[in-house]
Amino acid sequence: MRAASLPTDLQDVPAPDSLDAPPDDALADLAALVADDLLACNRVIVQHMQSEVELIPRLAAHLVAAGGKRLRPILTIATARMCGYGGGQRHVNLAACVEFIHTATLLHDDVVDGSQLRRGLASANAVFGNEASVLVGDFLFSRAFQLMTADGSLDVLRILSDAAATIAEGEVLQLVTQNDLSTTEARYLDVIQGKTAALFAAACQVGAVVANRPAAEALALSDYGTAIGMAFQLVDDALDYAADQRMLGKTVGDDFREGKITLPVLAAYHGGTAEDRAFWCRTIEASEQTDDDLEHALVLMARTGAIDATLRRAALYAEQAKAALVSFPPSALRRGLVAVADYTVQRGC
Amino acid sequence: MRAASLPTDLQDVPAPDSLDAPPDDALADLAALVADDLLACNRVIVQHMQSEVELIPRLAAHLVAAGGKRLRPILTIATARMCGYGGGQRHVNLAACVEFIHTATLLHDDVVDGSQLRRGLASANAVFGNEASVLVGDFLFSRAFQLMTADGSLDVLRILSDAAATIAEGEVLQLVTQNDLSTTEARYLDVIQGKTAALFAAACQVGAVVANRPAAEALALSDYGTAIGMAFQLVDDALDYAADQRMLGKTVGDDFREGKITLPVLAAYHGGTAEDRAFWCRTIEASEQTDDDLEHALVLMARTGAIDATLRRAALYAEQAKAALVSFPPSALRRGLVAVADYTVQRGC
Repeated sequence: MRAASLPTDLQDVPAPDSLDAPPDDALADLAALVADDLLACNRVIVQHMQSEVELIPRLAAHLVAAGGKRLRPILTIATARMCGYGGGQRHVNLAACVEFIHTATLLHDDVVDGSQLRRGLASANAVFGNEASVLVGDFLFSRAFQLMTADGSLDVLRILSDAAATIAEGEVLQLVTQNDLSTTEARYLDVIQGKTAALFAAACQVGAVVANRPAAEALALSDYGTAIGMAFQLVDDALDYAADQRMLGKTVGDDFREGKITLPVLAAYHGGTAEDRAFWCRTIEASEQTDDDLEHALVLMARTGAIDATLRRAALYAEQAKAALVSFPPSALRRGLVAVADYTVQRGC
Repeated sequence: MRAASLPTDLQDVPAPDSLDAPPDDALADLAALVADDLLACNRVIVQHMQSEVELIPRLAAHLVAAGGKRLRPILTIATARMCGYGGGQRHVNLAACVEFIHTATLLHDDVVDGSQLRRGLASANAVFGNEASVLVGDFLFSRAFQLMTADGSLDVLRILSDAAATIAEGEVLQLVTQNDLSTTEARYLDVIQGKTAALFAAACQVGAVVANRPAAEALALSDYGTAIGMAFQLVDDALDYAADQRMLGKTVGDDFREGKITLPVLAAYHGGTAEDRAFWCRTIEASEQTDDDLEHALVLMARTGAIDATLRRAALYAEQAKAALVSFPPSALRRGLVAVADYTVQRGC
């Protein structure tokens, strides 16, 4: 797993709420720029999740077709177009691969976490059972590789199979660090680099590869994807303690109940008093939690500035992401990708 | 999913115990013919299951390195050699891919089935938990695709990604038919074609592809693999009701307790009395089982000849497998592959 580079100087970055923020719908704006491609991608997704085994499209539809932001496939399509790709439907098919890999991961994640909510609906495992979620995840993962093979680029296959292995490594590392407050911040960053940023990086890198751009551009887009992936996950981890439950579309406090080690927890633990640390040891390490504990956790996070620190870190990664795009000529798509970098942070404010 | 062709005339086939049987160690004999390649394959397996995330090789070693018969990789290596492959290590690397896909499937299967035993040891999920088994399965699956991509043959990628999707479909179909005695025999055969025979078929077909043999030979080897896969699974399903537990290496009666619809159950149900059918409805459909029920199930199977019928069906597939090899010139390897076809059936007698 490639270690994520780690911004260290938090002082240079303004707090997110003072950023010159793009509108909240930056993602919708970018999606609008590639609307036809995105519609085509949705068709490919629906077409390729079909199977004679009727439970497969039914379960897949619950998650894939029910929406979601399509952030990753939008990135593949937008980066390909920004790189001048105009030769056909490869970028659309590969965007669908990326979404299938993401969906397979979500299905398996929800089983591993025992999650009950996903995107504001009952999770697939809650409706169809863990068994079906594991197996349909395997199916979608296989479909992704069938689609990539049909595309025929070994470079793309290498990028996405490497990403898939890295995702699994990140997920296992997350499992290993669960309930362990001795986890270092660097190790936490390795986890989110693997479980989240690797697929963002691959999704963006593929855009340059289908457009036959030089390796330096593919690398720049990989860096862009890594950085927004890191920002995205940091904000996600902050939202798990800070969001309105309806907006979040999943249960607030899930990470707390599972004893997941995220930056808000590490910041509150290391920035807290001895009494605070005893609280975190009991609730996160020993998994002894009462009904009031989540509320107290939020109080401690507010007092230690743990959420703000997490969002500032996310903002740093968003700046890295934008910096990775400077070598591309100005265009509406580049502006859209820049705005999406800010969007990943703004959604947490 | 391609439907398995279905032998229908059981009368023409001798009962397995009267077959001109090969020695019990036919698989060991074939393995001996490709001993150096198999050692190399084991090295590739151990090398590629490594990861910086230490739990991954530890869990993988529990299953992959602990042995198992290596039936599928032996088939890839032996078919490649029979087809005259001599150009390098591709057959060895692809045999490792096949074993990784198989192992990933086993890990996920054991989670889905809640199995406690595998190959005579505590199953990986029993030792490391369901979560880790799901995620390490994903990792091994990704590793398989990384290895295939490094091999670089799109034909091989197509064969194995198609097989992976078919396996998942077969597993989901098995889940759907669970506890459902109205499942037809044809549907049961679709299940085992998908969950088991598809990977055997792919494992053998790849042997012809790496050796650059004509499509007809690849197809013949795919047919051989399909047929021994079907035979293998039929015998497995018979053994779940008939084996000595120590020999089986897993818990006898697992299928019964899970309400799995297999040919022994269908044969005993359809060949039984009204009272028998009431028993099967209670135990398999309603999942109401007492401690004595497994023993009574075995009595009913003996009375209806359900196990013998299943083994005869397996023997038919073994004959199909051998017939698929007639177009290849006689050689020690062809003899070995013929003997393995019989071995798949003999291990049930």
